[in-house]
Amino acid sequence: MNAEIIAVGSELLTPERLDTNSLHLTEELNALGVEVVAKSVVGDDRERLSAMVRAALSRSEIVILTGGLGPTEDDVTRDAVAAALGRGQALRQEICDAIERRFRRMNRQMVEINRRQAFIIEGAEALRNDHGTAPGQWIVEQGRVVVLLPGPPGEMKLMFSAECLPRLRKMLPAQVIRTRVLRVAGMPESDLDQRIAPVYTKYQNPVTTILAAPGDIQIHLRARCQGAAEAESLLAELSSQIEALLGDKIYSKDGAPLEAVIGDLLRARSATLSVAESCTGGLLAEQITSIAGSSDYFVGGFLVYTDRMKSTLLGVEPQLLQEHTAVSEPAAQAMALGARQRTGATYALSVTGIAGPAGGTEATPAGTVFIGVAGPDACRTHRFRFLGDRARIRALAAQTALDLLRRSL
Amino acid sequence: MNAEIIAVGSELLTPERLDTNSLHLTEELNALGVEVVAKSVVGDDRERLSAMVRAALSRSEIVILTGGLGPTEDDVTRDAVAAALGRGQALRQEICDAIERRFRRMNRQMVEINRRQAFIIEGAEALRNDHGTAPGQWIVEQGRVVVLLPGPPGEMKLMFSAECLPRLRKMLPAQVIRTRVLRVAGMPESDLDQRIAPVYTKYQNPVTTILAAPGDIQIHLRARCQGAAEAESLLAELSSQIEALLGDKIYSKDGAPLEAVIGDLLRARSATLSVAESCTGGLLAEQITSIAGSSDYFVGGFLVYTDRMKSTLLGVEPQLLQEHTAVSEPAAQAMALGARQRTGATYALSVTGIAGPAGGTEATPAGTVFIGVAGPDACRTHRFRFLGDRARIRALAAQTALDLLRRSL
Repeated sequence: MNAEIIAVGSELLTPERLDTNSLHLTEELNALGVEVVAKSVVGDDRERLSAMVRAALSRSEIVILTGGLGPTEDDVTRDAVAAALGRGQALRQEICDAIERRFRRMNRQMVEINRRQAFIIEGAEALRNDHGTAPGQWIVEQGRVVVLLPGPPGEMKLMFSAECLPRLRKMLPAQVIRTRVLRVAGMPESDLDQRIAPVYTKYQNPVTTILAAPGDIQIHLRARCQGAAEAESLLAELSSQIEALLGDKIYSKDGAPLEAVIGDLLRARSATLSVAESCTGGLLAEQITSIAGSSDYFVGGFLVYTDRMKSTLLGVEPQLLQEHTAVSEPAAQAMALGARQRTGATYALSVTGIAGPAGGTEATPAGTVFIGVAGPDACRTHRFRFLGDRARIRALAAQTALDLLRRSL
Repeated sequence: MNAEIIAVGSELLTPERLDTNSLHLTEELNALGVEVVAKSVVGDDRERLSAMVRAALSRSEIVILTGGLGPTEDDVTRDAVAAALGRGQALRQEICDAIERRFRRMNRQMVEINRRQAFIIEGAEALRNDHGTAPGQWIVEQGRVVVLLPGPPGEMKLMFSAECLPRLRKMLPAQVIRTRVLRVAGMPESDLDQRIAPVYTKYQNPVTTILAAPGDIQIHLRARCQGAAEAESLLAELSSQIEALLGDKIYSKDGAPLEAVIGDLLRARSATLSVAESCTGGLLAEQITSIAGSSDYFVGGFLVYTDRMKSTLLGVEPQLLQEHTAVSEPAAQAMALGARQRTGATYALSVTGIAGPAGGTEATPAGTVFIGVAGPDACRTHRFRFLGDRARIRALAAQTALDLLRRSL
């Protein structure tokens, strides 16, 4: 079966924005064996959207729209689809009540325009939205399907998983798709690919896809078979060959992010963790605490952006900072030891460096980062030189700090 | 005039790839006063592409295609456009010779399939490609224009500048586009829209677009006029009416994010800032320090994830935490005061709450967040109830804390 995706919103037609919802939807649809044959972006224009929906329906069995379900005048998706199908719309009181309850829970009054979101196209099924006010809609038209999803990625993803996947599975021929995601830290994408390409290119099934983010590479393996056992065995066959080539560079074999892997390692050891961040400015802790339940092992830490804070909050000797500067191995060591001692945590990570673009010197150019790992037995420090802009250098520093902790656990 | 852009290539329909050529083209077209009203991506499928070209031509005056001009079987753009227009194609010997010369310059022999690239649609002008073999094509059809450009971004950009811009300028009335971006904190999108829709819907020009993220709304105004002065005066006219309705909810009139606005305010007052974060776990500081030069005013702070850290690092009385719990107004106040006192900063922000999903109680459900703002004159605390998942609650808490600080500055 074929699908088309239409993203709605004039902001997606500016030179600064791209529709990324379609990437997630494509991945999910491909996993069901559905091919995405076209994608479109259209502004908040009723007639034009209506024409595009009609055209898409004439070509493809599944048409998914994202966005334009808000309460305002320029949210035109409901009207445009109703017009394209020649159907009316009706207010569903139970949806209106649910939206009103949602507002009450936030101690707010529902405003009149939100009632618009309770209008459902004739014959459509409403799709629950647990994370926003706009319900989705599922419409069958002469054996073809039109789906309306909200634009915010969080709402869209949850609604697709909970409400659309089960309905699509019922429509589609039985086929099993199994995936495995290996994650690798501390390796450039080209090095990794050079090492494993001779293995994965031998396989048409599973399909291998490599996705790179700063300091983090995901290797997606996807097998498509008649039965689950066959798919799993193909995945195991290819995965074991890749694992043999990458060894302990692989930190996760189930797609879990590094911060979750570290959380599990700490929890298993009944150990706790603290941080002392300079150039990452909170990013390291933010990543650690993005995991629900991280309060089991993360106790807290210090943001020490200035030399004075490094001394006052962490007890780093002013003389040490004067002699070596704050971006140095001794400073990273003193920060990690100070954080560990002052919090009483089993481990402490410290990060000090120059995120740039300004602040670099010849001896210590922008991108220079020192990371310290203090534990029960020792405190080790490491020097890095990361390349890229401020955001990339900070992301690489945080990711590398987490990987160094993983290796000492 | 309106334009549509169609990117051709099956690789652009995978979960990993996006068409980015359209961003450059949109920027160039907007600068000419041409609006991009739709964008599409379609795979290497002659019939489907042909249908999409016909549909685009029925809606828009300019249709630009990128990609699919290569020499292989799956490069279908030439054939699909010829079919859509009902025109034939003919080999142009001079183009064939030019391709052959290009190959000779690279000390290579032209292979037979490259002759395909010398086929030009009847009535089309060939567009020179100095950086690749595939010429572009410029076709006028009943006053409308279809343009075929190569897919590689370097070739596409150069051909557009050298060959298309002069032709487009001749077609178009002289026109200028100016934009203004207002940003608003602490207001739900529906409330904002209800307040300002009566004003902005009166204007077809400037066009208003509203973009919402957690705790942050952008109002984009875009004016299209004969001259720059006229465009600026239209923007000023509409903007001043919106400003009158939203007052100090508007934190930025030039698109700058909240963390940059706060940085400017602090710098202007020679004031400094520190933080004490519990549930945001570093996110607030991370946002503040994402701005280059934030070390001018941000000194550092405390991550206090456990009760013990709140007491040890910030001096919050254990008895206070026992009596009121850590998610309470007194705790937020003691945290802000402790951070301000221990860092010596002019201002301190504290955030304590339950990001969820677990940890909520009946009295203090997940999403409850207390924020404290301590300054030279006073320390104020505020209670909030945010809805959404863990990431959204944390984002709303950080954004709200920044906005509270802005209001006290």
